[in-house]
Amino acid sequence: MSSHFSDRIAEAVKKKSTPLIVGLDPVYSRLPQTLRDGRGDGETDLAAAIDSIFEFCTRTLKIVAPIVGAVKINIAYFEKYLWEGLEVYHSLLSEAEALGIEVIGDVKRGDIGHTADCYADAHLVNPEFEGMDSVIAPDAITVNGFAGADGILPFADKALENGKGIFVWVRASNPSAGVIQDFADASGVKMYEKLAEVVGQIANQPDRIGKFGYSNVGMVIGGTSPQETESLRKKYPKCWILVPGYGSQGATAADCLRFRNPNGLGALINASRSIIYAYENPQYAQQFGDNWEKCIEQATIDAKIELSKAM
Amino acid sequence: MSSHFSDRIAEAVKKKSTPLIVGLDPVYSRLPQTLRDGRGDGETDLAAAIDSIFEFCTRTLKIVAPIVGAVKINIAYFEKYLWEGLEVYHSLLSEAEALGIEVIGDVKRGDIGHTADCYADAHLVNPEFEGMDSVIAPDAITVNGFAGADGILPFADKALENGKGIFVWVRASNPSAGVIQDFADASGVKMYEKLAEVVGQIANQPDRIGKFGYSNVGMVIGGTSPQETESLRKKYPKCWILVPGYGSQGATAADCLRFRNPNGLGALINASRSIIYAYENPQYAQQFGDNWEKCIEQATIDAKIELSKAM
Repeated sequence: MSSHFSDRIAEAVKKKSTPLIVGLDPVYSRLPQTLRDGRGDGETDLAAAIDSIFEFCTRTLKIVAPIVGAVKINIAYFEKYLWEGLEVYHSLLSEAEALGIEVIGDVKRGDIGHTADCYADAHLVNPEFEGMDSVIAPDAITVNGFAGADGILPFADKALENGKGIFVWVRASNPSAGVIQDFADASGVKMYEKLAEVVGQIANQPDRIGKFGYSNVGMVIGGTSPQETESLRKKYPKCWILVPGYGSQGATAADCLRFRNPNGLGALINASRSIIYAYENPQYAQQFGDNWEKCIEQATIDAKIELSKAM
Repeated sequence: MSSHFSDRIAEAVKKKSTPLIVGLDPVYSRLPQTLRDGRGDGETDLAAAIDSIFEFCTRTLKIVAPIVGAVKINIAYFEKYLWEGLEVYHSLLSEAEALGIEVIGDVKRGDIGHTADCYADAHLVNPEFEGMDSVIAPDAITVNGFAGADGILPFADKALENGKGIFVWVRASNPSAGVIQDFADASGVKMYEKLAEVVGQIANQPDRIGKFGYSNVGMVIGGTSPQETESLRKKYPKCWILVPGYGSQGATAADCLRFRNPNGLGALINASRSIIYAYENPQYAQQFGDNWEKCIEQATIDAKIELSKAM
């Protein structure tokens, strides 16, 4: 396996013939009833909740691993369950690794100085403590770049040393994001474009570029703001762009596909809720009944086909 | 005890007659040798590291609790030790609570939508799981407001419901922060000022204001950029301003005190390394020898006196 994240992710996208990745945002109350039955009430019983979530996520990983090249695991949904939730998050990283897919930790960490170093150690370095050989860090994480280059470089460098990558959050897809991120200077340059410039300068450093021409430093750009952000694709061709929001957040396949390079690489298009809760969707529930795993499998295949058709 | 964070923190500042707060950023390799001896090598032995860190932090909390009104605990230094580190972080929150001081979790979390809700649940709600009565969330946390109001409100509201507060990171003190945060529009308004406006609008909502006239929503403003940021104090008189950087990061007492309101409230001035590693400072080491606790105590008292003199 390549020791450079940008090569591994390129190979994963090519191998599975899709830019689609699946996001795990597990909410206990939405899990299939069969996974909640017989375990106590997960709203008050922490062990019941995390057992259900762990089973749901491991089974979902096995379903999607043959279809997509990567998964994104959102740590917020595990932090809610305190240190026991964090242990489950780490177990899932290992499960995904064992299935041979790339895994992105959606952690949105960001700070300055030594604190940034600590976060980078926590989330980008496979632990080197005795007896923890099976515990790994994700292949890449999301990073908040609000502090500028000083806040990004500790993550970018630690990632590179460890064969991992980062995606800096450049433009969000929520309604109010524009108030801050579209804030424009006298020449019309927007704040997110300035942030992209900072990220791009770091990303373009020659030692970061792998054999497919991509950097270990990428960007997160919301799929629901494609018109505004399309120019970033051309300006920063060496960056992988992680596009959240496909499916439930309202971005169409065409919206998301704009972030690919002409060679078909460069975009990772994430669908979370539309896939992992596919059993709530009448389209699948009617076809597969209580078989939630079939629903998830079919929704993943359908999303992949939909993206292929739009290419 | 008041059920409103902004009242509790005002009472704490008044009671201890100081805006000084102490930050815990524990780094294993810098801990007093006596706390590392006999426990194995904490660089490779996770249990040894967190045992040493826990002892250091609990003893430090006991030293500073009679002198200052609040402590800031930086979660990054615990995340490095995975789920076991997170458990120690939570244990320290409970220790601080038992000592009767306010505790701010420096977590810099930020995201949108349901993910923001999850982070708010994780860090601002005392866990309601069975058998976890002793586990508490901090009195307040730091928040990254990059996503604008949508990304701040889930934290602000969850905090208010639970008698807790937030400090949104508005201006950092690192050298490169200005590239993003001082990015200015045609009329000269800077991005951090725009972000402060968003935070201020949320903070000024009447139901957030406690009996001392302060909101449960405050700001983090680096102490090393006082000239640029001084106007924020006057514009947002209802916000508590958390000022990092006193001591080691190069901000002087006068730099930090600019963020107080005329009545002496409104600023929390944080010193971390200059206090918790005071035993590395020849000034204290020569006086107290190996008694690291006396060094920390004296450094805390000296910082408090220095701030008093500068008022």
